Amino acid sequence: LIAIDWGTSSMRAFLLDKGGAVLEERRSACGILEAGGQFASALGTAIDGWDDPLIVMAGMIGSRQGWIEVPYVDCPAGPREIVTALHRVPPAEFDGRDLWIVPGLRAADPQGGCDVMRGEETQICGVIDELGLQRHTVCLPGTHSKRASVMVGRVEAFATAMTGEIFELLCVHSMLGRLMSPARDSDSDAFALGVTHAKRDGDLLHHLFAVRTLGLFDALSPEQLRSFLSGLLIGHELNDLPADSGTVHLIAAPALLSAYEVALRLRGHATRAHAEVAAAHGCYRLASLAGLHPQEPI
Amino acid sequence: LIAIDWGTSSMRAFLLDKGGAVLEERRSACGILEAGGQFASALGTAIDGWDDPLIVMAGMIGSRQGWIEVPYVDCPAGPREIVTALHRVPPAEFDGRDLWIVPGLRAADPQGGCDVMRGEETQICGVIDELGLQRHTVCLPGTHSKRASVMVGRVEAFATAMTGEIFELLCVHSMLGRLMSPARDSDSDAFALGVTHAKRDGDLLHHLFAVRTLGLFDALSPEQLRSFLSGLLIGHELNDLPADSGTVHLIAAPALLSAYEVALRLRGHATRAHAEVAAAHGCYRLASLAGLHPQEPI
Repeated sequence: LIAIDWGTSSMRAFLLDKGGAVLEERRSACGILEAGGQFASALGTAIDGWDDPLIVMAGMIGSRQGWIEVPYVDCPAGPREIVTALHRVPPAEFDGRDLWIVPGLRAADPQGGCDVMRGEETQICGVIDELGLQRHTVCLPGTHSKRASVMVGRVEAFATAMTGEIFELLCVHSMLGRLMSPARDSDSDAFALGVTHAKRDGDLLHHLFAVRTLGLFDALSPEQLRSFLSGLLIGHELNDLPADSGTVHLIAAPALLSAYEVALRLRGHATRAHAEVAAAHGCYRLASLAGLHPQEPI
Repeated sequence: LIAIDWGTSSMRAFLLDKGGAVLEERRSACGILEAGGQFASALGTAIDGWDDPLIVMAGMIGSRQGWIEVPYVDCPAGPREIVTALHRVPPAEFDGRDLWIVPGLRAADPQGGCDVMRGEETQICGVIDELGLQRHTVCLPGTHSKRASVMVGRVEAFATAMTGEIFELLCVHSMLGRLMSPARDSDSDAFALGVTHAKRDGDLLHHLFAVRTLGLFDALSPEQLRSFLSGLLIGHELNDLPADSGTVHLIAAPALLSAYEVALRLRGHATRAHAEVAAAHGCYRLASLAGLHPQEPI
């Protein structure tokens, strides 16, 4: 099996053995925007030399801007509901191979409206069997962080926070970014101060200005401002996390994982880390459940 | 008197008559960043042909990045406190003329830390005599919106919200901006929906994603998304405004003034609009109080 996590601005490809273990992983900046509609060609380049006949793809590749728009599956939904909506790409479009796209999930918002995810449902499927039957919270930090409530093997509800994108925008393009000096490492004191600051009265739009005032009066050095902002934004994301959420399961790359672990502990939450390779495990799990794996001779 | 409101990214110059009425106004994109340290030369260009000997400047021109760093005056402070800290630029630096910089204000935050303004204090001084002795709220929307609490002719406290800067960043650089189509006019329904949406449970980082989901499921057209985002951000800024703030005084340019009037009324606040020329009136008021005007022959 080849598993692909194909997002807006990046792609990860995994070659798995018959038991689902990752044999090889490749990363590329060729997200669906970069691919410019030439998805077959971009996929061919990404998996060059891998000859497995079965390919399962998750992420924005199934969005309106992707290869084929695959309708969202409504929550509550787990692997069984997702598998019924796996979408097959006509084999003629890619080398005659067996190519599938995992649908995203849609969750109704209790206040009206809805939220959506594409890709994260597959990562959750990669860890869902480990969670048992109680209610669990799974956090998937990133450009658009997702926080999902999982029970009895299904995603019941989830919400998106644009934490990562806002952080990048502010560092690169804002007045606050101009006040920052590059720092080699994250500053743990400044990060913790930001996480705590986010609990104060007042809206994020007001709290952001503290990056300026704390810098102006030398409470923080220009090298610390980036870490403070990171803590402030992650803290705001976590303001929406109920106090009784229990152990929070994190799926993230190492640097982000560590930041969220610190922030969650500062807020009194226990955490459990899961490998970012959850995306590959999810594709494998879904393919197994769908009976897509070639049968082994007995 | 020549009054100058000199901000980070723009400058406004006013020529006033002896009674303080505006004879002429000029606007320029030559903010203190654009001036590149050549403030005397930039000012000369801006007021070319105006020969008044007395010039009063307010705004970021008195900041660390400006002509001379003028220390902040601590709140509570009104025209009398500000006047004692007016800073004179050595006449040799500008053509022998009588050139003054108005100090900014600093307000302690009840939770520790502080907030700052430069320029808005002068606009408030331009309207403060009209307000009477009760407590009033003055809102100065913009890139960095200021909301000040004024009583008995002094600014008691204030807070900054980075509403305008975040709006521009999101429209120009974010994933949300890519979903928007240009619209000739603001859409009042979408704007009102945004103002209301901001009252929901959840943090701004989560609410921002509604720009995507409402667009995705056609609840709003691509032409409406910008107005929705504007309402959402202004609504979040106003979440920090106490319900018992009474009539809210607005000082802003016409388009922004109208947006805040609508948003404040949707939230049940009465409003009163003041002309943006308040900056010029403030400079005049401070110059009078300081006795800087040349004496008239009796």
